[in-house]
Amino acid sequence: MTEGRSRRPGPRIEEVARVAGVSKSTVSRVINGEKYVSERSRQAVHRAIAMLGYSPNHAARTLAGSRANAIALVISELGSRVLADPFFAGVLRGVHAELAGRHVQLLMMMNQPLDGEDQVSYLTGGHVDGALVVSLHGEDPLPRTLHETGLPIVVGGRPLAGGAVPFVDSDNFNGALQAVRLLVSLGRQKIATIAGPHDMAVGMDRLSGWRCGLAEHGMSVALVVHSDFTPESGALAMEELLRRAPDLDAVFVAADIMALGALRVLQARGYRIPDDVAVVGFDDSVLASTAVPPLTTVRQDVEQFGRTLTWRLLAELAGDEKLPQSILLPTSLVRRTSA
Amino acid sequence: MTEGRSRRPGPRIEEVARVAGVSKSTVSRVINGEKYVSERSRQAVHRAIAMLGYSPNHAARTLAGSRANAIALVISELGSRVLADPFFAGVLRGVHAELAGRHVQLLMMMNQPLDGEDQVSYLTGGHVDGALVVSLHGEDPLPRTLHETGLPIVVGGRPLAGGAVPFVDSDNFNGALQAVRLLVSLGRQKIATIAGPHDMAVGMDRLSGWRCGLAEHGMSVALVVHSDFTPESGALAMEELLRRAPDLDAVFVAADIMALGALRVLQARGYRIPDDVAVVGFDDSVLASTAVPPLTTVRQDVEQFGRTLTWRLLAELAGDEKLPQSILLPTSLVRRTSA
Repeated sequence: MTEGRSRRPGPRIEEVARVAGVSKSTVSRVINGEKYVSERSRQAVHRAIAMLGYSPNHAARTLAGSRANAIALVISELGSRVLADPFFAGVLRGVHAELAGRHVQLLMMMNQPLDGEDQVSYLTGGHVDGALVVSLHGEDPLPRTLHETGLPIVVGGRPLAGGAVPFVDSDNFNGALQAVRLLVSLGRQKIATIAGPHDMAVGMDRLSGWRCGLAEHGMSVALVVHSDFTPESGALAMEELLRRAPDLDAVFVAADIMALGALRVLQARGYRIPDDVAVVGFDDSVLASTAVPPLTTVRQDVEQFGRTLTWRLLAELAGDEKLPQSILLPTSLVRRTSA
Repeated sequence: MTEGRSRRPGPRIEEVARVAGVSKSTVSRVINGEKYVSERSRQAVHRAIAMLGYSPNHAARTLAGSRANAIALVISELGSRVLADPFFAGVLRGVHAELAGRHVQLLMMMNQPLDGEDQVSYLTGGHVDGALVVSLHGEDPLPRTLHETGLPIVVGGRPLAGGAVPFVDSDNFNGALQAVRLLVSLGRQKIATIAGPHDMAVGMDRLSGWRCGLAEHGMSVALVVHSDFTPESGALAMEELLRRAPDLDAVFVAADIMALGALRVLQARGYRIPDDVAVVGFDDSVLASTAVPPLTTVRQDVEQFGRTLTWRLLAELAGDEKLPQSILLPTSLVRRTSA
């Protein structure tokens, strides 16, 4: 990467100091994340860095005379949720598999009670050569902020904030569309959905696919409840749907982990699955095949997702300039008993 | 910490270079983890560093003119196991709680297909101010190696390799002893154990407690099967115990997560719990209270364990010189239905 970069040199620390109206050593202190800098100077330096597209990461690396030989996997979720959801275990397996034999240290960073600026200053302080960022919520500025400092990053899942940040995503829209088409072909008339969070592209894209599948058959798109990718929230959402439509005959659940909660509620109320209510999940995680009854679901290859993220980042670090900006991975229906 | 250290300055890079018989820049290259150094020079530098007790971490920090404001949580397990075991989620919650408001970035590092030297060179390369190391196996040299470079570390769980490395542990021996005393007081005659791994202190200490509890009543300590802290291995171990002693009337299982597998096997064979076989677990994780029947177990406060580890490291980083070398946290019986 050093080679790739030296061909198109960026602005230098002197320019940042001049634009910010501070000394070079103040710029250096801000970049190194020291606390003994006035808030005013710190903000001026950050503005200058953003304006000039300066890469403190590159500078710090040059200073140290070596690369960090490490990349970060930043997961924008609380640790407790990360460790309970098999999605992240799958992504991690993929990242580790792609790193095998490369002598690159992986650092996992999850949400903790500290502000985003601490995370940014660590990531851009020369401690990592690049970052994978997954599970973003809302218009989180993190990927754009990192990208603007020149740190190579790849986002897992389309970032809602848009911009020119490279990302890898599963084809969530088409997966959901296929699920609804299956339910329609089975003669289901009243198809509800337990959608993912409002503030994540993965939630919105799966919801769009469900809507489109119903709309193409002139069916109602009224039965939607949003949820947050935990079994408990899936159960609550199912209860809400049954209150609104006790005669629903199918539900598309935007994640297997929420479908477990939904199955529990349906069975407790005496609905037979799939006879009374057909259920389709999403992910094809281990939870789907061990569910009772085994879950018909949309398969996304989570390990491949992790591998592709990592491959895209390492290729950029190796100086490859012909990389696709973003990559969409296919999804496919897996038929089991629940639909 | 910088202050605390400057009062007792360590050897300098010149001395390392002299002892190793190489140039200062070669020492620097080895410390920075660069690959373009001969194997012979690299080994000579590592030997000199170990011999002199030199701290490249300190040197690198001085070079960069600042602390990293980050600590590592190193878990010596494959990522897939870490993400499936609620023990690690609890430790992580504790670490995050203790770091709240401190502006210290936490980096999680799990086993990945790369050799331990890469991990050591990252950890001692000035990228972190200290490290927590948990779930060690066998006589893993990692904690001693890190300690010898001068990097402040605290080990979670007594390290089998011994040495002067500070650690925090739960009182596993006494917890197991209390469990066996309960089973004896309930009149159980044939008390087996599913022990943890041979190569971890946590496994050996719980086994010792079980042995001691039986020995003090003159009872047999023959019924032992080792296992590896997964539900599957717990089930296999229970099958093996039943082959050897179909009339056993109690089993102490060295972790709740293994007890789940054991319960499944006992119930499938028609044993009533606790009438035919009493079961006691260890950990009091969420798995214990939701098990069927709810599990009598030994409580260790995993979140407190994570907090104490972190507190001990941060206190050392703040220059506190009157810290206890190691800390043992109490354990206690929690009675539910299974015994």
